Amino acid sequence: MAVSKSDLPRLSASQAAELIRQNRISAQDYAQALLEKVRERDPQVRAWVYLDEKAILEQARRLDQVPPHKRGPLHGVAVGIKDIFLTKDMPTRYYSRLHAHDGNAAADSAAVGVLRAAGAIIFGKTATTEFASMTEGRPCTNPNNPKHTPGGSSSGSAAAVADFQVPIAIGTQTGGSIVRPGSFNGCYGFKPTWGTVSTEGVGRFSVSADTPGFYARSVEDIELLSVLFRLDSLMIEPLKPLPVAGAKIAFIKTHIWPNAGPGTHAAWDLAHKLLREKGADVEDVDLPESFAKCSDWREIVVTEEARAAFLPKYREDKTKLHVDIVALVESRDLPSRKQVLEAHDGIARLRSEWDQIAAKYDIILTPSALDEAPEGLESTGTAIFCSMWTILHVPAMNIPGFKGALGLPIGLTAIGSRYSDMEVLQGGKAVGAVFNEM
Amino acid sequence: MAVSKSDLPRLSASQAAELIRQNRISAQDYAQALLEKVRERDPQVRAWVYLDEKAILEQARRLDQVPPHKRGPLHGVAVGIKDIFLTKDMPTRYYSRLHAHDGNAAADSAAVGVLRAAGAIIFGKTATTEFASMTEGRPCTNPNNPKHTPGGSSSGSAAAVADFQVPIAIGTQTGGSIVRPGSFNGCYGFKPTWGTVSTEGVGRFSVSADTPGFYARSVEDIELLSVLFRLDSLMIEPLKPLPVAGAKIAFIKTHIWPNAGPGTHAAWDLAHKLLREKGADVEDVDLPESFAKCSDWREIVVTEEARAAFLPKYREDKTKLHVDIVALVESRDLPSRKQVLEAHDGIARLRSEWDQIAAKYDIILTPSALDEAPEGLESTGTAIFCSMWTILHVPAMNIPGFKGALGLPIGLTAIGSRYSDMEVLQGGKAVGAVFNEM
Repeated sequence: MAVSKSDLPRLSASQAAELIRQNRISAQDYAQALLEKVRERDPQVRAWVYLDEKAILEQARRLDQVPPHKRGPLHGVAVGIKDIFLTKDMPTRYYSRLHAHDGNAAADSAAVGVLRAAGAIIFGKTATTEFASMTEGRPCTNPNNPKHTPGGSSSGSAAAVADFQVPIAIGTQTGGSIVRPGSFNGCYGFKPTWGTVSTEGVGRFSVSADTPGFYARSVEDIELLSVLFRLDSLMIEPLKPLPVAGAKIAFIKTHIWPNAGPGTHAAWDLAHKLLREKGADVEDVDLPESFAKCSDWREIVVTEEARAAFLPKYREDKTKLHVDIVALVESRDLPSRKQVLEAHDGIARLRSEWDQIAAKYDIILTPSALDEAPEGLESTGTAIFCSMWTILHVPAMNIPGFKGALGLPIGLTAIGSRYSDMEVLQGGKAVGAVFNEM
Repeated sequence: MAVSKSDLPRLSASQAAELIRQNRISAQDYAQALLEKVRERDPQVRAWVYLDEKAILEQARRLDQVPPHKRGPLHGVAVGIKDIFLTKDMPTRYYSRLHAHDGNAAADSAAVGVLRAAGAIIFGKTATTEFASMTEGRPCTNPNNPKHTPGGSSSGSAAAVADFQVPIAIGTQTGGSIVRPGSFNGCYGFKPTWGTVSTEGVGRFSVSADTPGFYARSVEDIELLSVLFRLDSLMIEPLKPLPVAGAKIAFIKTHIWPNAGPGTHAAWDLAHKLLREKGADVEDVDLPESFAKCSDWREIVVTEEARAAFLPKYREDKTKLHVDIVALVESRDLPSRKQVLEAHDGIARLRSEWDQIAAKYDIILTPSALDEAPEGLESTGTAIFCSMWTILHVPAMNIPGFKGALGLPIGLTAIGSRYSDMEVLQGGKAVGAVFNEM
């Protein structure tokens, strides 16, 4: 099968890697095709805050010269990097005026280092909200409709992947910053178990919650990245096949459900129906009352830790910080020691309690966002359906497949117990196939 | 009182800051005096891996030109920086061949940013073991005897402070990397509650354990730094005076005690005696049996997280890594998912249990190290008396004051409940005064 140049941007990372490995396309041709796509779409989508065409082609040229036996699993594959990961060949600016003139890092952040060592083309830096901590967006737009937000804070990574500008990208989630943009733009967005991907060289917001993760247009690509990052190292045993027919699938609305909009309601009902039709053993599961406190506890922990994270920025020059960050550092009205400890210990108990619940099901689904992406670029939306899972440290993957009233994407999230990352991907792949065969 | 130049290195940070604030000494004169001390001592102590005299004097010159009302709390005070914190004006090299040619960072790490904004002179980078994760030392020596290790991994920060080359320095602790060098070199070394000082821009070893902290020769200086970093923000109420007479002081040997050497035995007994003589209500306290598992659990968590931390280094070039790091990344014989979860959840339960115990006492003491610093530079010693407190996330401060059989320093550690940092400093100051009035 010949691959025409115009088809190259539609390749998955796995497909591109395979073709480049077989020398059927060069990394340079592939990079050129993506750059053409970027040139066409960037004036509207504005996913990139730093992208140097010459440097990309130079990376591709060098990769094409690497002999086949020295090529890594992502050889020649382009990756978008959220602009809070340090990169040694491009600046990192956190969408912050404090870092507007920062140059290249002395060394790559840990995640970028893993990607680069695997032969990836570090394609460029993608739009984020300020320090990945604010909901104020701009200028990145939703590729499905430029009047709508792409979500945040990993706005550009999700938009660039959903828009076929790169096959994969990395982001971070402290509340819902991977899953929500995945849902709004219509791609897979995976937040692994906390602690399994190093945050060295990544902008800090909350040490207990910050988690790097991946975007792709297929679960196969998320799996490729997950194996690269060794997320399979705590597997209990090789995964058995998981047919949807007969699978025990839990639908968990959570206490946030009353906030869900019509688009998420419709996706929920349709997912239910589709999976039942395939013979799945679908069950609506209510969480114990104790979980209702989790989002508030997360808020307390993140508020306390964010204050420490933003202290140096504040001390350097508070006039260059978002007013909400200034207020956070200055506030005298903060959680008390008792509240912070109650939050840490309460969340720790829930983590273990959640694992017990999760163990009863093959696949667990929960909402990704309130509805399709809202209109306007000022706000990137709310993380309320995601933040509990983030602080519980569990793997969570947005699965696209549904549409809202305006025709914009809506996803649902597959979740699991801590370290069950590969199981969540397997389950997400199975239900994703059902959702997307319509 | 006139201050002679040769006395300047003996000033505490608080004293130096005060004299510079009053224009009684200039930052340049102060820096010159410290540099003379470094020139004299560095050939033996080798605490510094990067130190640029011209750049130091240039910083001092600029600081001397800052008008008094714009001067921060550390104006003109020299600070040593462990060589795993990113600095924008000097390289960061982690004692790693992988980073041997790295240049300056694009931006300061969070902790360095706070220090710089307070007007500190970022004096130079101090010796660390490889990625602050190995016990293999060299070339830094113990200022009390160059044949003995200064401990690690924050070797140079502790040695430089104890040797009067700088008044304060920063380090990190994942096992015992702040407290142990404090004990071996004979200075205060404080590891705050986990999460209260941002690790942004710091080399990663284990996200659940890595904690930045401070060295000084007085508790007043540790307090100065702690307030600067806002460790007082979760105070319950202003501290009441804490006289040693009548104070409830717990001595906790822990299950590690059978490993303690004669120096630590003697320090323990003497501390007991001195505090009883001052009228303290001294009590030997045994921890519940459950705490005996804590060090093993910490080992499991750190092993699992270190693998993620070192993956990019390994993938970049494993031939440039310590064989133990290579073994860690390659090992097939790692903790299982069940063990990792049991460790995380067990530690979380102990954190809350420990806080209940700690609440019963005004001051709590525990050993800092097995004994005085062992001979030889190959090994920086063991962290076994410290690592439990690190993973419990509690504040821990080495208090110097004792000597071993060879006359080298030995300290004891003051500990407390999570977020009781200021109380631990107050208690440590009270008992430190007793230990050091001999």
